[in-house]
Amino acid sequence: MPIAEGIQNALASASMIRKMFEEGNRLKKQHGADNVFDFSLGNPDVDPPPDFYRILLQFAGENKKGVHGYMSNAGFTDVREAIAKKVSREHQVAADASHIVMSVGAAGGLNTVLKTVCNPGDEVIVSRPYFMEYRYYAANHGAKLVEADSLPGFDLDIGAIEAALSPKTAAVLINSPNNPTGKVYPATTIAALADALRRHGGKTGRPPCLVSDEPYREIAYGIEVPPLLCAYDEAIVVSSYSKSLSLPGERIGYIALSPEISCKDALMDGLIFATRTLGYVNAPALMQRIVAELTEARIDVSVYARRRDAFTAILDEAEIEYAAPEGAFYLFCKIPERKIKNEAESNDLAFVNHLKQHLILGVPGSGFGKPGWLRFAYCVDEKIIRASAAAFSKAMESW
Amino acid sequence: MPIAEGIQNALASASMIRKMFEEGNRLKKQHGADNVFDFSLGNPDVDPPPDFYRILLQFAGENKKGVHGYMSNAGFTDVREAIAKKVSREHQVAADASHIVMSVGAAGGLNTVLKTVCNPGDEVIVSRPYFMEYRYYAANHGAKLVEADSLPGFDLDIGAIEAALSPKTAAVLINSPNNPTGKVYPATTIAALADALRRHGGKTGRPPCLVSDEPYREIAYGIEVPPLLCAYDEAIVVSSYSKSLSLPGERIGYIALSPEISCKDALMDGLIFATRTLGYVNAPALMQRIVAELTEARIDVSVYARRRDAFTAILDEAEIEYAAPEGAFYLFCKIPERKIKNEAESNDLAFVNHLKQHLILGVPGSGFGKPGWLRFAYCVDEKIIRASAAAFSKAMESW
Repeated sequence: MPIAEGIQNALASASMIRKMFEEGNRLKKQHGADNVFDFSLGNPDVDPPPDFYRILLQFAGENKKGVHGYMSNAGFTDVREAIAKKVSREHQVAADASHIVMSVGAAGGLNTVLKTVCNPGDEVIVSRPYFMEYRYYAANHGAKLVEADSLPGFDLDIGAIEAALSPKTAAVLINSPNNPTGKVYPATTIAALADALRRHGGKTGRPPCLVSDEPYREIAYGIEVPPLLCAYDEAIVVSSYSKSLSLPGERIGYIALSPEISCKDALMDGLIFATRTLGYVNAPALMQRIVAELTEARIDVSVYARRRDAFTAILDEAEIEYAAPEGAFYLFCKIPERKIKNEAESNDLAFVNHLKQHLILGVPGSGFGKPGWLRFAYCVDEKIIRASAAAFSKAMESW
Repeated sequence: MPIAEGIQNALASASMIRKMFEEGNRLKKQHGADNVFDFSLGNPDVDPPPDFYRILLQFAGENKKGVHGYMSNAGFTDVREAIAKKVSREHQVAADASHIVMSVGAAGGLNTVLKTVCNPGDEVIVSRPYFMEYRYYAANHGAKLVEADSLPGFDLDIGAIEAALSPKTAAVLINSPNNPTGKVYPATTIAALADALRRHGGKTGRPPCLVSDEPYREIAYGIEVPPLLCAYDEAIVVSSYSKSLSLPGERIGYIALSPEISCKDALMDGLIFATRTLGYVNAPALMQRIVAELTEARIDVSVYARRRDAFTAILDEAEIEYAAPEGAFYLFCKIPERKIKNEAESNDLAFVNHLKQHLILGVPGSGFGKPGWLRFAYCVDEKIIRASAAAFSKAMESW
């Protein structure tokens, strides 16, 4: 029984990264987990906040009728109201429950939105580098990802996005704080993007939907992530509690619409239909009720800030250039120029492989549409980060 | 900003059923919820078993590191092992963790399987009547549903399925105990179906995948639901805890492969890739751990058995013909012949509307591909079922 051709092809092209993960596991078995500096995965290791455990225990002790049963596909109404209040504060709008759909994490929310707004053959614009899963999410619904370059320092290049817009553009998908760069787009950038999209809408009669993937909004270092929904009428935010409450395995997130969005009722009907028929049916019931109680709670961001500082000090010492992260927990680094000449390997993979020989694991930038760079995730224990300094220094000596 | 055409069309055709639900809500507001006999929704109202609450409370009190974090997309290995033991018992095979993928309910599992086995343009055969969501699940992945009629009494018509097989058949999708008929397919039927699929595979070189949607396996009345995975090598079971533990809002289920399935490793890679990229990422972490502890627990099925008996007594009295349900919690009824002549309305909808005037709500059979019938769900309080007797009798007087 053969598997679908689309999946066979995707698996073949993904095998490079999978091989690296397998290699990482092999290295850990061989050298001991503590001696391998695995910065490859974005799996938050910080504990959920104490309030999460308190509410979980409280709800577990109440056997209320029907709380584990079906509700409206959009989620419990009181939960949607609580999320709407949080969204209204963060985005300077007056959203209510009718603008919120609870989702199976941000990944479920993004698939739901793309299914609802994309006709087959439509285009979704992303800024390079971008989270690699977007490619598959768009393909699920017959849409095509169109890549626009970013500016040096990884702010959005509005000119490049404008050049990529076409009558087939259904959505522009942005991610701030950004994975893999840690960039937070300033309010001026968001305003300029909104202007460009409005101009395009005026010309073509099809204003693109601005989809903002924001699971890292609450993980920013001394910088305010500017509001988005107030900046553009046709805007949709997708977020989750995977990072802000460290609950990625529980698959709980939401979709929030700008209260000014056009065709709001049809769009909500579409999002609810897509939530149902894509097989999510609804966001997990218990976690919905828990996050509604925790709209002010979050993990201790200072832990990530300390790790970031420890990691950048090591990179400075090793003379590896990086984009200073303003949020999230990734460092996107430029592959340093090779001083010791070698056969003509692809620069990107050659450096990743070279680091691996020194038991340091990262993800090549080509996985994010940006060869010549690599990503380190610093959601790992600070001790491991500090212990990697010697390995980095040794690796650079022989590069 | 328009929504996708495919969704617009689906919403337009689904509006009949949605209108009925809205009408039901309006009736409840007008007459009081207790005076409306709402048999339209399959939302289990029986409480989860006491063991569920015990384990939930136990796990809520343990703040173990990482239990709410990401795990392999297929699920926690120890959870998959526990499910494999249950599947091995139920299906008379020797499955292990490598044959199990934890899923976001059965709906998530079915989408994952169909994405993995269907090329765009492929066909998925179903037996009429069938759960209406299958149509959308197949369409999500570019596949087309092909309907085969069932036998009187709603057993599978193997001849009709054989006639529907083609070189484009990727899968045959069955559901036992069945929604909407309550039919449990006997072992002889499963064996005959397996023979037919093997013959077709021998002729075309493409043995279809037999996908068995089994969320009601544990809700059967004095009848054993026969094992499936041992009957056919290319078989996949999809199930959930939505009915057996009354947890439909928590979205927890699994996919189980026949240990004899061909291309097992590629298939598992494909299922894991589809789980990840369809945006489920993984089944909710806490519920995974809970159901692994509850492989022997289930809700009290005798509650449903008593309701079924109460409901069939009312239908007998009203002289409405039905298929005697062997499992699940639905009664599929033949629209009675009209004694009082009326304008030429569609029989199916006319009777549903007539019942509605007597505050009885059901779903027209056309929603399951079977006009001339209607479905009542008896996952509602026995008091409401008993109280509906007078309304049924009055409705029949004026039909």
